Amino acid sequence: MKLLTYLHSGKENAGVLSKDGTSVFPFCSFGLPYNDMNSFIRDSGMSRLNELSQALESKTDGGVPFSEIKLLAPIPQPAQDVICLGVNFLAHAQESARYKKEVFEQDRAAAVYFSKRVDRAVATGDEIDGHFDIVDSLDYEAELAVVIGRDARDVSEQDVFSYILGYTVMNDVSARNLQTRHKQWYFGKSLDGFAPMGPWIVTEEEFDRPPVLSVQSRVNGEVRQNSTTGLFITSIESAVSELSQGMTLKAGTIISMGTPAGVGMGFDPPKFLKPGDVVECEVEKIGTLRNTIQ
Amino acid sequence: MKLLTYLHSGKENAGVLSKDGTSVFPFCSFGLPYNDMNSFIRDSGMSRLNELSQALESKTDGGVPFSEIKLLAPIPQPAQDVICLGVNFLAHAQESARYKKEVFEQDRAAAVYFSKRVDRAVATGDEIDGHFDIVDSLDYEAELAVVIGRDARDVSEQDVFSYILGYTVMNDVSARNLQTRHKQWYFGKSLDGFAPMGPWIVTEEEFDRPPVLSVQSRVNGEVRQNSTTGLFITSIESAVSELSQGMTLKAGTIISMGTPAGVGMGFDPPKFLKPGDVVECEVEKIGTLRNTIQ
Repeated sequence: MKLLTYLHSGKENAGVLSKDGTSVFPFCSFGLPYNDMNSFIRDSGMSRLNELSQALESKTDGGVPFSEIKLLAPIPQPAQDVICLGVNFLAHAQESARYKKEVFEQDRAAAVYFSKRVDRAVATGDEIDGHFDIVDSLDYEAELAVVIGRDARDVSEQDVFSYILGYTVMNDVSARNLQTRHKQWYFGKSLDGFAPMGPWIVTEEEFDRPPVLSVQSRVNGEVRQNSTTGLFITSIESAVSELSQGMTLKAGTIISMGTPAGVGMGFDPPKFLKPGDVVECEVEKIGTLRNTIQ
Repeated sequence: MKLLTYLHSGKENAGVLSKDGTSVFPFCSFGLPYNDMNSFIRDSGMSRLNELSQALESKTDGGVPFSEIKLLAPIPQPAQDVICLGVNFLAHAQESARYKKEVFEQDRAAAVYFSKRVDRAVATGDEIDGHFDIVDSLDYEAELAVVIGRDARDVSEQDVFSYILGYTVMNDVSARNLQTRHKQWYFGKSLDGFAPMGPWIVTEEEFDRPPVLSVQSRVNGEVRQNSTTGLFITSIESAVSELSQGMTLKAGTIISMGTPAGVGMGFDPPKFLKPGDVVECEVEKIGTLRNTIQ
């Protein structure tokens, strides 16, 4: 099932895409009192998924044509900053080390977690502000993102998937100059508009556990990243379980699982983004997030 | 003026402390429709400060005795993660380098920014969960925190203070083992309860620009940190202005300015926190944040 946030007749709403993809049914058309994804998730929307899925089978009324809506990011305003994994693919760890001229650590026992401030997530189809007045090395990072569906605290690896509402695609847009200059990555990852997300959340029951999905990015049609979530160094089970030890992952928490090799800084010379570039981030079975650099 | 959030008769509310400190007047007693600090700040509460201050002079009705309330953190649930400055005092930079056995970089041109996830900020008087099942090196960091009062974007250093609602005290509680293990500091700073904040927000007009204030921490009465905000490497003006370039600092954003030397890891052997320890973080003209380790 695809959960989405959208604009229709000038109003923001949230709901479900019909199986054939032609109609959008807002949550309220199922009698649920939610017009945004945060409320749906916070009020245990996860426990309503079966019910929604069954109702969707025979649903005809209360929908709007997909062609009439504008997709927004599925969670336009995350309630807390997005948690990201760093260097979670071996080949990306190597290209990063090359670019930053750091010694590559073979001892990768522990995951790298950092956060990304998101005031307003950018939707597919929208432009990404490159902030070229302060950024000279704008980069893309296609990632699978996990959306937590109910408060997770001290969750064992075996139980992790029962806390996941679904998955979406994230472009962890990065200003390499700021990321490097300020030592901790936070600021270079958190400029306004650096969190394109979408096109929607695909619910967890549609995937294997763990999901093994191809992850690809393209810039102006040229394939840059092409890997699979089967190559994560730290798995979804491990990351969610570890983070939940001591830190409550509230319903609505987004965890972006890290990016494969092939980012701009990985090329020699680097291939950074420039105005007009079209970046596509695609994850199998979820969809494509397509944005133009402004 | 002191802005505070508190519990009275089982209900959470927010308001202003009387000048003599004996009464608390909720915002609603001034005809303002806010019962929490986030709404007050978001709806430009900053533009009401003069009015509030004048009304407070002669105010007698609608208050509750200070002795009857329980203080909560002034912003119990920050709308976004807290932004923190790392190594913003020279002497602390040196003790950190010693502990981590890293080469100390003399070239400290750029500030270090990271973030701290805060689900629920801990109030003065409350306990801090030490998470001793996963933490073997619990540490305190007394800090001055800046509270942004209106959306700040591309703000020049000269204009910074007109965007500041006020200041509070923050204890940037840190699990050194997690902070080090995961390379980026985020996780080791973000466990549940690691953000004690308070006792209140003192509004900006009561301070010099920039404020030069003593910062002290004590553990079981023993002075550990004792410095002044006059020794910041990166000033408030510089940090707020720089962060606002490209990243909107929304009203309600909290920026914690970094901690002086004297944290637990700075001693040889280190003096980490243990259950029962009482930690006090005090900033001149604001107050003392006092918490017991659980």
